[in-house]
Parts: sequence; C-alpha cells; structure tokens
Amino acid sequence: MITLASDFGSPYPAAMKGVLLERIDSDVRLVDITHELPRGDVHSSAFWLREILPYFPPAIHLVVVDPGVGTDRRAIVVRAGDHLLVGPDNGVLLPVARRLAASSDQRPDGASADSTGPTASLEVFSVDESALETPVPTGGKAEAAGSTTFHGRDVFAPIAAALEETDRPLEGLPWLSPLSDPVDCTLPTAAIDGDTAEATVLAVDDFGNVITNVPGRFLEGVDRVLVDDERVPVGETFASVERGEPVALVGSHGYVELDVNDGRGSEAFGLFVDEHVTLERLESP
Amino acid sequence: MITLASDFGSPYPAAMKGVLLERIDSDVRLVDITHELPRGDVHSSAFWLREILPYFPPAIHLVVVDPGVGTDRRAIVVRAGDHLLVGPDNGVLLPVARRLAASSDQRPDGASADSTGPTASLEVFSVDESALETPVPTGGKAEAAGSTTFHGRDVFAPIAAALEETDRPLEGLPWLSPLSDPVDCTLPTAAIDGDTAEATVLAVDDFGNVITNVPGRFLEGVDRVLVDDERVPVGETFASVERGEPVALVGSHGYVELDVNDGRGSEAFGLFVDEHVTLERLESP
Amino acid sequence: MITLASDFGSPYPAAMKGVLLERIDSDVRLVDITHELPRGDVHSSAFWLREILPYFPPAIHLVVVDPGVGTDRRAIVVRAGDHLLVGPDNGVLLPVARRLAASSDQRPDGASADSTGPTASLEVFSVDESALETPVPTGGKAEAAGSTTFHGRDVFAPIAAALEETDRPLEGLPWLSPLSDPVDCTLPTAAIDGDTAEATVLAVDDFGNVITNVPGRFLEGVDRVLVDDERVPVGETFASVERGEPVALVGSHGYVELDVNDGRGSEAFGLFVDEHVTLERLESP
Repeated sequence: MITLASDFGSPYPAAMKGVLLERIDSDVRLVDITHELPRGDVHSSAFWLREILPYFPPAIHLVVVDPGVGTDRRAIVVRAGDHLLVGPDNGVLLPVARRLAASSDQRPDGASADSTGPTASLEVFSVDESALETPVPTGGKAEAAGSTTFHGRDVFAPIAAALEETDRPLEGLPWLSPLSDPVDCTLPTAAIDGDTAEATVLAVDDFGNVITNVPGRFLEGVDRVLVDDERVPVGETFASVERGEPVALVGSHGYVELDVNDGRGSEAFGLFVDEHVTLERLESP
Repeated sequence: MITLASDFGSPYPAAMKGVLLERIDSDVRLVDITHELPRGDVHSSAFWLREILPYFPPAIHLVVVDPGVGTDRRAIVVRAGDHLLVGPDNGVLLPVARRLAASSDQRPDGASADSTGPTASLEVFSVDESALETPVPTGGKAEAAGSTTFHGRDVFAPIAAALEETDRPLEGLPWLSPLSDPVDCTLPTAAIDGDTAEATVLAVDDFGNVITNVPGRFLEGVDRVLVDDERVPVGETFASVERGEPVALVGSHGYVELDVNDGRGSEAFGLFVDEHVTLERLESP
Repeated sequence: MITLASDFGSPYPAAMKGVLLERIDSDVRLVDITHELPRGDVHSSAFWLREILPYFPPAIHLVVVDPGVGTDRRAIVVRAGDHLLVGPDNGVLLPVARRLAASSDQRPDGASADSTGPTASLEVFSVDESALETPVPTGGKAEAAGSTTFHGRDVFAPIAAALEETDRPLEGLPWLSPLSDPVDCTLPTAAIDGDTAEATVLAVDDFGNVITNVPGRFLEGVDRVLVDDERVPVGETFASVERGEPVALVGSHGYVELDVNDGRGSEAFGLFVDEHVTLERLESP
C-alpha cells in the first residue's frame, strides 16, 4: 500500500500516481490521504500527518510538502516501525514518524529482529537519487529531463516506487545512506500553569474548528473557559450549545478545540494557524 | 466494496479509510462518493445519495452527515435490497434506502430467500457499539479513547469494517437489533395544479444548476416557463440557449432544472437549497 | 485500468464510477486524474491531459469536458499507441493522443502488428451508442431514460465499460466506425523572434503559476526577462527569489512559467488562461 499526501491541490497528484503505476508491476493499492495539506506549511502539515497516518496499517507514505523544492535539501526515507515514509528533508515527516515508532515500540509484537533499543524503530536515510535502478530524471534547465519544481513526480514518486518494488532491507539498498542529522520539526507544546494555558493553534480544520495544543484534560471539571477575553462554555460536543454559539471541547485529536456549532470557530474567535491564544479555566459561577 | 460519503471535506475522510484498511484483511475496494455533501444538511445530502448510490453494484455504503455527532442519536445499519448502508439515525439514509429497496423488489432476481413482502427489502437495525467484536473506542472526555466529534472515524467506519468482515446474516449479529422507528427524512414533493408548480429546490450542483422537485414531464409541450416572475425558455440542453442565458430543462435526475449556459443558475435566479419557487407553464406565444 | 478526468467537481464523478463498476465484472483499477479541469475550457483541459496522461501505463482514459453535451456532437474513441481515450468529439482528446502516439512510435516496442506508418499509432473512431451490447440509455425528454445533460454517466462511462469488457480489437466492434474528420484542437505555439517571444498562457495551475507556451530553452543564458513591461529575474526554482517575489523559470512541463515564490503568479502578473503576454530576453546588466 502506498498513501499519498501533498499540498498540490489538483491536478498534479495524478502525475505522481501515473509514475507509481508505470513503475510498479503489482496491483499495489494507492490511497489518497489528502492533497489539501496547508500549502507550504511544514508544521501544520506535520500535525495532520501525525493525526491521520497512524490509523493506517503498515504502508509506504509518500508525502510532499516541499517549499524548498529544487534547492539542495535532501530527499529522505524514514523507517518508523512497520511504516516507511518518503519525502523532503524539511521536518514534515518526523512528528508522525516518532508517533508511529512509539506505537511500534509499545506493541507486544513491535520488537522486530533488528530492534535493539527504545529508538530502534525510527531510522532516517538520505537518498542518492542517481543510484536508483531506474534513476530519477536529472533536473536542471539544460537537460529539461527532470524538473526543478515538481519533485513529487520526478523524485519522490520514483523513490516510493523503488521501495515498493524491492524485497531487500533498507540497509542493503545502495541508494540509501543512514542520516543522523535530518531537519527536524517539533510541534509546539502548550505552557500550562495552574488554570492558565498559553497555547498555539496547531491547525484549523475544514469546518473552521480551531485545534489548539492544550491537552483535553485541561477542560476536566470546568463549565467555562476564558479564551483570551471571551467566556466560552465547555461542552461535550458541538450540539452542547445552540447553533451559531461558540463552544470549547475536547476534539477528536485529544486537544482542546474552539468551535462554533454549525459555524466556523476560526472566524468567530479570530484565530488562525500558528497564532497564540490564552485559555483560562473558570470556576463554576 | 465500501463506498464513503460525507460532508467532511479534507483531510478527515483519510482517517476513516485508515480505520477500514486496518480492520479489514481482504483487498476490499474503497470508493469515494464525495466528501463535499452539503455540510450538515440532511435533506440535500439525502437527495444526492438517492441519485448516485443506485448506480453502484451491491456494496456497503458508509455515510456520515451527522450534525448530531456525540449526542445520543443512534448509529444504524440499513439493509436495502443487496446494499447495506451505515450511518447516523437522522434520516439521511432513508430516501436512498427506499429507492434501492424498490429497485430490488422490481428486479426478477430481487426476491431473496428472506423476502416475504413488498417491504421485505428494507430493514433498519440499531447498533450496539460496545458489542462489536473489536468494540469502537469509548467516547467521553474522561477516557479520551474515542471522540465525541468524529464518529465517522470512531464509530461508523468500525461498523462498516465489521459488516465487511462478517459472513453471517445481519439477523445473527449480536450487535444489531431491529429498529422500527428510525428517524426519517422525506424529500419534499412539488404541488402541481394545472400549469402551476409550487416547488422546492432540492439541491444546487457544483455547476450552479438549480435542481427543483418538479418532475420533468411538467415541461412537455411548452417552450417557456415563468420562474417566479421571469420568463425562461425551455431547452433540451444547456447549449439550447446562448452562453450566459438562462434555460429550464429536464436535468439528469429527471427533474426540472433552472440553469444558465456556461454560467451559474443559482446566482442568476437567486435560488438556493430548500428555497421555494413557483413555476408556471406558458402557452406558446 | 480506467482513468477518469472531468470538469465536474463533485459529486457527479461518483455516478460515472458506479456505472463503470456495475457494468464491469473484473476488479479493474479506477484512477481519478482530476475532476477540476478548467470548466468548459477545451484548450486548457487538453493541455493538462497532455501533460499528465503520458505518465500512465496503458489504460482506458475517460475524459469528459463537454460544453456541447446533448447536442449532436459525436462520442469518440481514440487509439493512441497502447492507450484508449473516450470522450466527446470536441478536440479535447487530440493533443494528448498525438503525444501518446508519438511516444509509442518512438519506442522500440512501439511497432505493434497493425502499425504500418508514422501515424499508425493514432486512430479515431465514432461511436454508435445504440449498437453497444448494453446500449446506453436513450436521451430526450419524452423517455427520460437517459439524460441530455450528463453524458459522462449515460454515454461515456458505458462506452469505457464496454471497451474494458471486450477482448476484440477495435476494428471488430460493430459500434465503432473509423472517423477521418474528428474535431481537432491545437494548442497555440509561441512566436519567437530573436530575443522576443509572443506567448499565450496555456494554463494557470492550482498554485497560481502562469504556464506559457514558450519552450524553456528561451531562458538559457539570461538572468532577467521582460514580461510585458516588468523586469523579472530568471531562477532555477521558486526559492531562487525571496518569498513574495516574482520569478521566471522552466516549469515541470518544460515551458517558461511566471511564478511568485510562496505566492500566486497569476494575480501578481495579471495573467490568466488564453491571454497573450510578450517575453523579452534581457542582456545581463
């Protein structure tokens, strides 16, 4: 199984699928995760991947959110438990890789033959694109064979196809080299002090729900929170309040979300990705 | 085969696919119907499902348009002929289920072994989520194991997976109970009196075409209709009028549509979902 | 394999998939190319198909960009090398068909048994819809059996299904007739005179990048170009300039693109599909 995620919109993802299907002989399953990841936003994209990919069985995950396309940033392959991730070396793969690896380490059957320690489930390799059996097209204006602007099609899809087609362990592939210093990306954590949380908006979803980085237990035992200067009721679900009314709740990612029933929390609260917000637990009146 | 339809946009449908693929051993086919159903609009979503799902061969149809997520509304499974539908008990499944069942009753081979009467092809079951072999995660803030806001991932996808994995008839599944009083949803019918139709807009499609609930035969034999106060030519197809001009025609659902050639009928007529409109057949001048 | 491309948005493509899956017995792979082709724009859609479909292995490509739906324009099948294309006879299939055929003629294995000349790889057939084994529904208001507005579902998908299901060569199918005068569509070529190119915008992609029809080699050896009256630096990739700054580069289609790093070139340059633009190579200062 190969999953595909990008910030490409349409129609570029289809070219990646063509490359995969042309290079792979088997009837491999292709699954679109989304091609509407926040454009060029490595942090918010990393959040979505971390929340979605762990629901999948072992797969090759092709991820292209790549504002540095065409520069000398590396292409990498990450092994995280039984999953493989392919994408640019800009950090977007790391948060989900850590979660997949941790899940693998915790599982009774997670100790594979080559696992030797707590971090054994996570390994990063850099890719020598020219050493693939069917090399990726060479970029540059002169040749016009590959592109400097669409590595999803010309670099990352061929790598994913090569991984799907090989039976050899990653360590035996001449086009992969262990990489000890991948570019990392760490999602911000909320600073919680007593009843106050200094939070960051990790993402705004398609419904306009504002997903903060405050763990859901922050809402336990209180009926209201102060969101910056606004008193907001705490609810179990959207329908805990009337239509059009704001509500703070524990969202499906386990974090505090700021929503509006049948409306868009982001516009109502004036909060967007990467912005800061202060939450305060209010005693029952 | 499992089809997926929701009003989720992106990227939440991918989490449902992950759950399905993780729980199902076979190489089941997954088909996206759409994840752009009219958000939170049970009636208009029910219209689209009724118009599209009957083109499919027998399948499990996973449908999530669920403004009451997290409340005590039930999860249901509907058997309609050879099709199974999974979704919330809010009526969204019933119009398509009735059409699938009627189609099954009409077919020579539609009389399955357990069909005993005219309504035998349509049965509704409520789901005891805790009794599934792999139970769905338990919702609620305290546990944070399941969610109160994403039952597509945490409740409905696991149910669809369980249906796909079982070989037993629905009657033998301990987690299903016959339900005699599902929440229903009936699409409005037009009131036609002579040459006048009091109509409702069932849907506006992606082209802006206004789909009314007036059967297409209303347009037989006339060249023009009065749409509220506007005289509109009747055509065979969009190109029956010049670009930018309005036209009334029999759309692909068999209903009268109010369109604009290469334009958006909805904006031109000022008509949106659930609104009322009066159509009047005009004698040829 | 059947690929699907249209300008339908959502949810109409699902009805086409239902028809295909209902009529085809095998576990054929369906691949969405895109359903966001430029609406009703035959030229720009033809560009996208020409740039994407050649990445695919041999397949049946179902294409519906059909502003003349319901008129007497024909339905056609095109054989281009090992690929088959199905769609309306409005030219949208021809540019990609020529490219697929040329690619087939150039390949060592491209000379199939019935190839007898340089154009042998490209043949066009018109479809007699009534002669299909499972005929397509008959359109027209009176019967209301087929539609005059949704031939993707009622005409083209059944044709693609029939092609998938048959083992016979196209010449033996009674519902296909060779067609010598298909409606053609030729993408405009740039007029290059010395350092000046009179260009046309072939497409604007989802990132807002302006794709001209000037071959990439036009940028060789210069650092700047004049775009109408604006001096624009030539770069290797988006990141060659600061965020928000314009750049001219060789895009992934091999043409000169006018882009903005992390912005939308189309709005910045005020250039949209089919518009003309003059490019001039500037000597290094």
